[in-house]
Amino acid sequence: MFIALEGGDGAGKSTQLPLLQEWFEKQGKTVTICREPGSTPLGEKVRDLLLFQRGLEICRMSELLLFMTARAQVVRQVIRPALERDEVVLADRFLLSSIVYQGYGGELEVEEIRKIGQIATGGTLPELNIILDLPLTYAKMRRKGEPDRLESEADAFHDRVRNGFLTEARLFPEKNVVVSAEDSVERIHAEICRAIQERL
Amino acid sequence: MFIALEGGDGAGKSTQLPLLQEWFEKQGKTVTICREPGSTPLGEKVRDLLLFQRGLEICRMSELLLFMTARAQVVRQVIRPALERDEVVLADRFLLSSIVYQGYGGELEVEEIRKIGQIATGGTLPELNIILDLPLTYAKMRRKGEPDRLESEADAFHDRVRNGFLTEARLFPEKNVVVSAEDSVERIHAEICRAIQERL
Repeated sequence: MFIALEGGDGAGKSTQLPLLQEWFEKQGKTVTICREPGSTPLGEKVRDLLLFQRGLEICRMSELLLFMTARAQVVRQVIRPALERDEVVLADRFLLSSIVYQGYGGELEVEEIRKIGQIATGGTLPELNIILDLPLTYAKMRRKGEPDRLESEADAFHDRVRNGFLTEARLFPEKNVVVSAEDSVERIHAEICRAIQERL
Repeated sequence: MFIALEGGDGAGKSTQLPLLQEWFEKQGKTVTICREPGSTPLGEKVRDLLLFQRGLEICRMSELLLFMTARAQVVRQVIRPALERDEVVLADRFLLSSIVYQGYGGELEVEEIRKIGQIATGGTLPELNIILDLPLTYAKMRRKGEPDRLESEADAFHDRVRNGFLTEARLFPEKNVVVSAEDSVERIHAEICRAIQERL
Protein backbone atom coordinates (compact mmCIF):
# COMPACT_ATOMS: atom_id res chain seq x y z
CA MET A 1 0.00 0.00 0.00
CA PHE A 2 1.42 3.36 -1.12
CA ILE A 3 -0.29 6.52 0.17
CA ALA A 4 0.79 10.15 -0.21
CA LEU A 5 -0.13 13.01 2.08
CA GLU A 6 -0.56 16.13 0.01
CA GLY A 7 -1.68 19.73 0.48
CA GLY A 8 -0.35 23.25 0.84
CA ASP A 9 2.28 24.22 3.39
CA GLY A 10 0.95 24.53 6.91
CA ALA A 11 -1.96 22.16 6.29
CA GLY A 12 -0.67 19.76 8.94
CA LYS A 13 1.01 16.97 6.96
CA SER A 14 3.90 16.66 9.40
CA THR A 15 1.46 16.38 12.33
CA GLN A 16 -0.74 13.80 10.62
CA LEU A 17 2.00 11.60 9.19
CA PRO A 18 3.21 10.09 12.51
CA LEU A 19 -0.41 9.60 13.66
CA LEU A 20 -1.14 7.70 10.48
CA GLN A 21 2.03 5.67 10.87
CA GLU A 22 0.97 4.70 14.41
CA TRP A 23 -2.49 3.75 13.17
CA PHE A 24 -1.00 1.35 10.60
CA GLU A 25 1.51 -0.05 13.11
CA LYS A 26 -1.31 -0.83 15.54
CA GLN A 27 -2.72 -3.00 12.76
CA GLY A 28 0.59 -4.90 12.66
CA LYS A 29 1.89 -3.21 9.53
CA THR A 30 5.48 -2.06 9.00
CA VAL A 31 5.52 1.49 7.71
CA THR A 32 8.16 3.20 5.57
CA ILE A 33 7.99 6.98 5.48
CA CYS A 34 9.51 9.16 2.79
CA ARG A 35 9.54 12.84 2.18
CA GLU A 36 9.88 14.85 -1.00
CA PRO A 37 12.60 15.59 -1.99
CA GLY A 38 14.87 13.65 0.30
CA SER A 39 14.85 10.18 1.89
CA THR A 40 17.92 9.15 -0.10
CA PRO A 41 21.42 10.65 -0.06
CA LEU A 42 20.86 11.95 -3.62
CA GLY A 43 17.46 13.31 -2.63
CA GLU A 44 18.97 15.21 0.31
CA LYS A 45 21.48 16.84 -2.03
CA VAL A 46 18.68 17.77 -4.41
CA ARG A 47 16.65 19.11 -1.49
CA ASP A 48 19.53 21.37 -0.53
CA LEU A 49 19.83 22.71 -4.11
CA LEU A 50 16.09 23.27 -4.39
CA LEU A 51 15.16 24.76 -1.09
CA PHE A 52 18.15 26.37 0.55
CA GLN A 53 20.54 27.75 -2.11
CA ARG A 54 18.98 31.17 -2.24
CA GLY A 55 21.31 32.80 -4.79
CA LEU A 56 21.15 29.93 -7.28
CA GLU A 57 19.16 30.63 -10.47
CA ILE A 58 16.82 27.67 -11.07
CA CYS A 59 14.22 27.96 -13.83
CA ARG A 60 10.80 26.40 -13.28
CA MET A 61 11.55 23.47 -15.63
CA SER A 62 14.83 22.67 -13.84
CA GLU A 63 13.00 22.88 -10.51
CA LEU A 64 10.54 20.29 -11.82
CA LEU A 65 13.32 18.04 -13.10
CA LEU A 66 15.17 18.19 -9.77
CA PHE A 67 12.05 17.03 -7.94
CA MET A 68 11.68 14.27 -10.54
CA THR A 69 15.32 13.25 -10.03
CA ALA A 70 14.78 12.78 -6.30
CA ARG A 71 11.53 10.94 -6.99
CA ALA A 72 13.13 8.53 -9.48
CA GLN A 73 15.78 7.70 -6.88
CA VAL A 74 13.43 7.24 -3.90
CA VAL A 75 11.17 4.98 -5.98
CA ARG A 76 14.03 2.62 -6.80
CA GLN A 77 16.02 2.87 -3.56
CA VAL A 78 13.24 3.01 -0.95
CA ILE A 79 9.64 2.67 -2.15
CA ARG A 80 9.80 -0.39 -4.42
CA PRO A 81 11.91 -2.42 -1.97
CA ALA A 82 9.46 -1.52 0.85
CA LEU A 83 6.44 -2.48 -1.25
CA GLU A 84 8.14 -5.76 -2.14
CA ARG A 85 8.55 -6.44 1.61
CA ASP A 86 4.77 -5.84 1.85
CA GLU A 87 5.17 -2.67 3.90
CA VAL A 88 2.96 0.40 3.90
CA VAL A 89 4.67 3.37 2.27
CA LEU A 90 3.59 6.82 3.46
CA ALA A 91 4.96 9.71 1.42
CA ASP A 92 5.07 13.31 2.59
CA ARG A 93 4.22 14.69 -0.91
CA PHE A 94 4.74 12.86 -4.20
CA LEU A 95 3.99 13.44 -7.91
CA LEU A 96 0.77 15.36 -7.22
CA SER A 97 2.86 18.09 -5.57
CA SER A 98 4.83 18.58 -8.80
CA ILE A 99 1.65 18.67 -10.85
CA VAL A 100 0.20 21.27 -8.53
CA TYR A 101 3.25 23.39 -7.55
CA GLN A 102 5.17 23.47 -10.82
CA GLY A 103 2.08 23.06 -13.00
CA TYR A 104 -0.91 24.95 -11.58
CA GLY A 105 1.35 27.17 -9.44
CA GLY A 106 4.41 27.57 -11.68
CA GLU A 107 2.42 27.41 -14.91
CA LEU A 108 4.29 24.59 -16.60
CA GLU A 109 2.08 22.33 -18.74
CA VAL A 110 0.28 19.90 -16.41
CA GLU A 111 0.17 17.17 -19.06
CA GLU A 112 3.93 17.43 -19.61
CA ILE A 113 4.51 17.03 -15.87
CA ARG A 114 2.26 13.96 -15.82
CA LYS A 115 4.23 12.49 -18.74
CA ILE A 116 7.63 13.06 -17.10
CA GLY A 117 6.26 11.82 -13.76
CA GLN A 118 5.04 8.61 -15.34
CA ILE A 119 8.44 7.97 -16.92
CA ALA A 120 10.51 9.05 -13.88
CA THR A 121 8.60 6.79 -11.46
CA GLY A 122 8.19 3.95 -13.95
CA GLY A 123 4.52 3.99 -12.89
CA THR A 124 5.18 3.47 -9.16
CA LEU A 125 2.58 5.97 -7.95
CA PRO A 126 0.42 6.27 -4.82
CA GLU A 127 -2.83 4.35 -4.85
CA LEU A 128 -4.29 7.26 -2.90
CA ASN A 129 -3.39 10.91 -2.39
CA ILE A 130 -4.85 12.41 0.78
CA ILE A 131 -5.11 16.14 0.19
CA LEU A 132 -5.21 18.24 3.36
CA ASP A 133 -7.10 21.34 2.30
CA LEU A 134 -6.78 24.67 4.05
CA PRO A 135 -7.74 28.20 2.95
CA LEU A 136 -4.67 30.34 2.32
CA THR A 137 -5.10 32.64 5.33
CA TYR A 138 -5.13 29.71 7.76
CA ALA A 139 -2.06 28.16 6.16
CA LYS A 140 -0.08 31.37 6.55
CA MET A 141 -0.90 31.62 10.26
CA ARG A 142 0.22 28.05 10.86
CA ARG A 143 3.53 28.28 9.02
CA LYS A 144 6.59 28.52 11.29
CA GLY A 145 10.16 29.83 10.87
CA GLU A 146 11.89 31.27 7.81
CA PRO A 147 10.03 30.37 4.62
CA ASP A 148 12.01 28.29 2.07
CA ARG A 149 12.16 29.01 -1.69
CA LEU A 150 8.71 27.64 -2.46
CA GLU A 151 7.03 28.96 0.67
CA SER A 152 8.08 32.48 -0.21
CA GLU A 153 6.27 32.49 -3.58
CA ALA A 154 3.55 35.13 -3.87
CA ASP A 155 -0.01 34.63 -2.58
CA ALA A 156 -1.35 34.29 -6.14
CA PHE A 157 0.92 31.28 -6.54
CA HIS A 158 -0.43 29.64 -3.39
CA ASP A 159 -3.98 30.36 -4.55
CA ARG A 160 -3.28 28.53 -7.81
CA VAL A 161 -1.74 25.68 -5.78
CA ARG A 162 -4.79 25.25 -3.59
CA ASN A 163 -7.05 25.44 -6.62
CA GLY A 164 -4.79 22.91 -8.37
CA PHE A 165 -5.17 20.34 -5.61
CA LEU A 166 -8.95 20.71 -5.69
CA THR A 167 -9.08 20.54 -9.49
CA GLU A 168 -6.98 17.37 -9.60
CA ALA A 169 -9.20 15.81 -6.94
CA ARG A 170 -12.25 16.53 -9.12
CA LEU A 171 -10.54 15.25 -12.28
CA PHE A 172 -9.30 12.00 -10.69
CA PRO A 173 -11.64 11.18 -7.79
CA GLU A 174 -10.51 7.53 -7.69
CA LYS A 175 -6.92 8.55 -6.81
CA ASN A 176 -7.52 11.57 -4.59
CA VAL A 177 -9.48 12.39 -1.47
CA VAL A 178 -9.78 15.88 0.01
CA VAL A 179 -9.82 16.22 3.80
CA SER A 180 -10.58 19.60 5.34
CA ALA A 181 -7.68 20.67 7.52
CA GLU A 182 -9.76 23.29 9.36
CA ASP A 183 -10.51 20.96 12.24
CA SER A 184 -8.84 19.49 15.32
CA VAL A 185 -5.82 17.21 14.87
CA GLU A 186 -7.85 14.23 16.16
CA ARG A 187 -10.79 14.79 13.83
CA ILE A 188 -8.54 15.23 10.80
CA HIS A 189 -6.74 12.02 11.73
CA ALA A 190 -10.06 10.17 12.07
CA GLU A 191 -11.19 11.51 8.71
CA ILE A 192 -7.95 10.34 7.04
CA CYS A 193 -8.30 6.83 8.51
CA ARG A 194 -11.92 6.66 7.40
CA ALA A 195 -10.94 7.66 3.84
CA ILE A 196 -8.25 4.96 3.72
CA GLN A 197 -10.62 2.28 5.01
CA GLU A 198 -13.24 3.24 2.45
CA ARG A 199 -10.88 3.40 -0.50
CA LEU A 200 -8.21 0.73 -0.02
CA MET B 1 22.69 28.62 -35.41
CA PHE B 2 22.91 25.88 -32.76
CA ILE B 3 25.36 23.03 -33.31
CA ALA B 4 26.36 20.22 -30.94
CA LEU B 5 29.60 18.28 -31.03
CA GLU B 6 28.89 14.71 -30.04
CA GLY B 7 30.75 11.41 -29.82
CA GLY B 8 32.39 9.04 -27.36
CA ASP B 9 35.00 10.15 -24.85
CA GLY B 10 38.43 10.68 -26.37
CA ALA B 11 37.06 11.37 -29.86
CA GLY B 12 38.53 14.86 -29.82
CA LYS B 13 35.57 17.14 -29.07
CA SER B 14 37.59 19.42 -26.79
CA THR B 15 40.28 19.80 -29.46
CA GLN B 16 37.81 20.51 -32.25
CA LEU B 17 35.52 22.89 -30.37
CA PRO B 18 37.97 25.87 -30.17
CA LEU B 19 38.99 25.34 -33.81
CA LEU B 20 35.36 25.49 -34.83
CA GLN B 21 34.82 28.56 -32.67
CA GLU B 22 37.76 30.29 -34.41
CA TRP B 23 36.38 29.33 -37.81
CA PHE B 24 33.05 30.98 -37.03
CA GLU B 25 34.73 34.04 -35.50
CA LYS B 26 36.79 34.54 -38.67
CA GLN B 27 33.45 34.82 -40.45
CA GLY B 28 32.50 37.65 -38.08
CA LYS B 29 30.19 35.55 -35.90
CA THR B 30 30.00 35.74 -32.12
CA VAL B 31 30.18 32.26 -30.63
CA THR B 32 28.75 31.02 -27.32
CA ILE B 33 30.12 27.72 -26.09
CA CYS B 34 28.40 25.48 -23.59
CA ARG B 35 29.23 22.12 -22.15
CA GLU B 36 27.05 19.37 -20.74
CA PRO B 37 26.30 19.42 -17.85
CA GLY B 38 27.61 22.77 -16.71
CA SER B 39 27.76 26.27 -18.18
CA THR B 40 25.40 27.61 -15.50
CA PRO B 41 25.88 27.68 -11.70
CA LEU B 42 23.11 25.05 -11.36
CA GLY B 43 24.68 22.97 -14.12
CA GLU B 44 28.04 23.00 -12.36
CA LYS B 45 26.41 21.72 -9.18
CA VAL B 46 24.67 19.00 -11.16
CA ARG B 47 27.96 18.16 -12.88
CA ASP B 48 29.59 17.70 -9.50
CA LEU B 49 26.79 15.36 -8.33
CA LEU B 50 26.90 13.35 -11.54
CA LEU B 51 30.56 12.93 -12.21
CA PHE B 52 32.56 13.27 -9.04
CA GLN B 53 30.53 12.06 -6.03
CA ARG B 54 31.78 8.51 -6.22
CA GLY B 55 29.95 7.08 -3.20
CA LEU B 56 26.56 8.56 -4.10
CA GLU B 57 23.96 6.04 -5.32
CA ILE B 58 22.36 7.45 -8.50
CA CYS B 59 20.02 5.20 -10.48
CA ARG B 60 20.07 5.43 -14.26
CA MET B 61 16.77 7.33 -14.39
CA SER B 62 17.98 9.92 -11.86
CA GLU B 63 21.19 10.25 -13.84
CA LEU B 64 19.11 11.03 -16.92
CA LEU B 65 16.97 13.55 -15.04
CA LEU B 66 20.03 15.32 -13.64
CA PHE B 67 21.40 15.80 -17.16
CA MET B 68 17.95 17.05 -18.21
CA THR B 69 17.89 19.49 -15.28
CA ALA B 70 21.18 21.06 -16.37
CA ARG B 71 19.97 21.13 -19.97
CA ALA B 72 16.69 22.87 -19.09
CA GLN B 73 18.67 25.54 -17.24
CA VAL B 74 21.33 26.13 -19.92
CA VAL B 75 18.64 26.42 -22.59
CA ARG B 76 16.88 29.23 -20.73
CA GLN B 77 19.89 30.94 -19.16
CA VAL B 78 22.46 30.72 -21.97
CA ILE B 79 21.35 29.20 -25.29
CA ARG B 80 18.08 31.03 -26.00
CA PRO B 81 19.49 34.46 -25.06
CA ALA B 82 22.53 33.80 -27.31
CA LEU B 83 20.35 32.69 -30.23
CA GLU B 84 18.20 35.80 -29.76
CA ARG B 85 21.39 37.89 -30.06
CA ASP B 86 21.98 36.05 -33.37
CA GLU B 87 25.08 34.27 -32.05
CA VAL B 88 26.33 30.83 -32.98
CA VAL B 89 25.91 28.35 -30.11
CA LEU B 90 28.36 25.45 -30.00
CA ALA B 91 27.53 22.78 -27.43
CA ASP B 92 29.97 20.19 -26.16
CA ARG B 93 27.32 17.43 -26.06
CA PHE B 94 23.55 17.95 -25.86
CA LEU B 95 20.39 15.81 -25.92
CA LEU B 96 21.87 13.20 -28.28
CA SER B 97 24.35 12.28 -25.54
CA SER B 98 21.48 11.42 -23.18
CA ILE B 99 19.74 9.39 -25.85
CA VAL B 100 22.94 7.49 -26.50
CA TYR B 101 24.55 7.21 -23.03
CA GLN B 102 21.47 6.67 -20.85
CA GLY B 103 19.44 5.05 -23.62
CA TYR B 104 21.57 2.82 -25.87
CA GLY B 105 24.31 2.59 -23.19
CA GLY B 106 22.29 2.58 -19.97
CA GLU B 107 19.32 0.77 -21.49
CA LEU B 108 16.60 3.25 -20.60
CA GLU B 109 13.86 3.55 -23.23
CA VAL B 110 15.14 5.77 -26.04
CA GLU B 111 11.65 7.08 -26.85
CA GLU B 112 11.10 8.09 -23.21
CA ILE B 113 14.38 10.03 -23.25
CA ARG B 114 13.33 11.80 -26.45
CA LYS B 115 10.00 12.73 -24.84
CA ILE B 116 11.61 14.13 -21.66
CA GLY B 117 14.25 15.89 -23.76
CA GLN B 118 11.63 17.57 -25.90
CA ILE B 119 9.80 18.82 -22.79
CA ALA B 120 12.93 19.81 -20.83
CA THR B 121 14.38 21.88 -23.69
CA GLY B 122 11.02 23.23 -24.85
CA GLY B 123 12.14 22.19 -28.34
CA THR B 124 15.36 24.26 -28.33
CA LEU B 125 17.54 21.61 -29.94
CA PRO B 126 20.63 21.68 -32.18
CA GLU B 127 20.00 22.07 -35.89
CA LEU B 128 22.96 19.76 -36.40
CA ASN B 129 24.81 17.18 -34.29
CA ILE B 130 28.35 16.54 -35.45
CA ILE B 131 29.24 13.05 -34.26
CA LEU B 132 32.97 12.38 -33.96
CA ASP B 133 33.24 8.65 -34.44
CA LEU B 134 36.13 6.57 -33.15
CA PRO B 135 36.53 2.81 -32.63
CA LEU B 136 36.64 1.94 -28.94
CA THR B 137 40.33 0.91 -28.85
CA TYR B 138 41.46 4.29 -30.22
CA ALA B 139 39.25 6.16 -27.76
CA LYS B 140 40.80 4.35 -24.81
CA MET B 141 44.33 5.16 -25.92
CA ARG B 142 43.48 8.85 -26.24
CA ARG B 143 41.75 9.23 -22.87
CA LYS B 144 43.80 11.01 -20.20
CA GLY B 145 43.76 11.10 -16.37
CA GLU B 146 41.43 9.43 -13.90
CA PRO B 147 38.19 8.30 -15.59
CA ASP B 148 34.95 9.89 -14.23
CA ARG B 149 31.76 7.96 -13.40
CA LEU B 150 30.66 7.53 -17.02
CA GLU B 151 34.11 6.92 -18.46
CA SER B 152 34.63 4.01 -16.12
CA GLU B 153 31.61 2.07 -17.38
CA ALA B 154 32.44 -1.32 -18.93
CA ASP B 155 33.58 -1.75 -22.53
CA ALA B 156 30.23 -3.27 -23.49
CA PHE B 157 28.59 0.00 -22.43
CA HIS B 158 30.92 2.03 -24.63
CA ASP B 159 30.28 -0.34 -27.54
CA ARG B 160 26.54 0.28 -27.17
CA VAL B 161 27.24 4.01 -27.01
CA ARG B 162 29.22 4.04 -30.24
CA ASN B 163 26.59 1.90 -31.92
CA GLY B 164 23.91 4.27 -30.56
CA PHE B 165 25.50 7.33 -32.15
CA LEU B 166 25.73 5.55 -35.51
CA THR B 167 22.15 4.24 -35.26
CA GLU B 168 20.74 7.69 -34.45
CA ALA B 169 22.69 9.15 -37.37
CA ARG B 170 21.10 6.57 -39.68
CA LEU B 171 17.60 7.16 -38.22
CA PHE B 172 17.78 10.98 -38.42
CA PRO B 173 20.23 11.82 -41.21
CA GLU B 174 18.90 15.39 -41.51
CA LYS B 175 19.95 16.24 -37.93
CA ASN B 176 23.18 14.26 -37.63
CA VAL B 177 26.44 13.96 -39.49
CA VAL B 178 29.15 11.43 -38.66
CA VAL B 179 32.78 12.51 -39.01
CA SER B 180 35.53 9.92 -38.64
CA ALA B 181 37.84 10.92 -35.81
CA GLU B 182 40.63 8.59 -37.00
CA ASP B 183 42.43 11.35 -38.86
CA SER B 184 44.65 14.37 -38.20
CA VAL B 185 43.23 17.27 -36.18
CA GLU B 186 43.38 19.51 -39.28
CA ARG B 187 41.55 17.06 -41.54
CA ILE B 188 38.83 16.41 -38.98
CA HIS B 189 38.37 20.17 -38.58
CA ALA B 190 38.12 20.61 -42.37
CA GLU B 191 35.57 17.80 -42.52
CA ILE B 192 33.45 19.40 -39.77
CA CYS B 193 33.48 22.79 -41.54
CA ARG B 194 32.54 21.17 -44.84
CA ALA B 195 29.59 19.37 -43.16
CA ILE B 196 28.34 22.63 -41.64
CA GLN B 197 28.60 24.50 -44.95
CA GLU B 198 26.72 21.74 -46.74
CA ARG B 199 23.95 21.41 -44.17
CA LEU B 200 23.28 24.89 -42.75
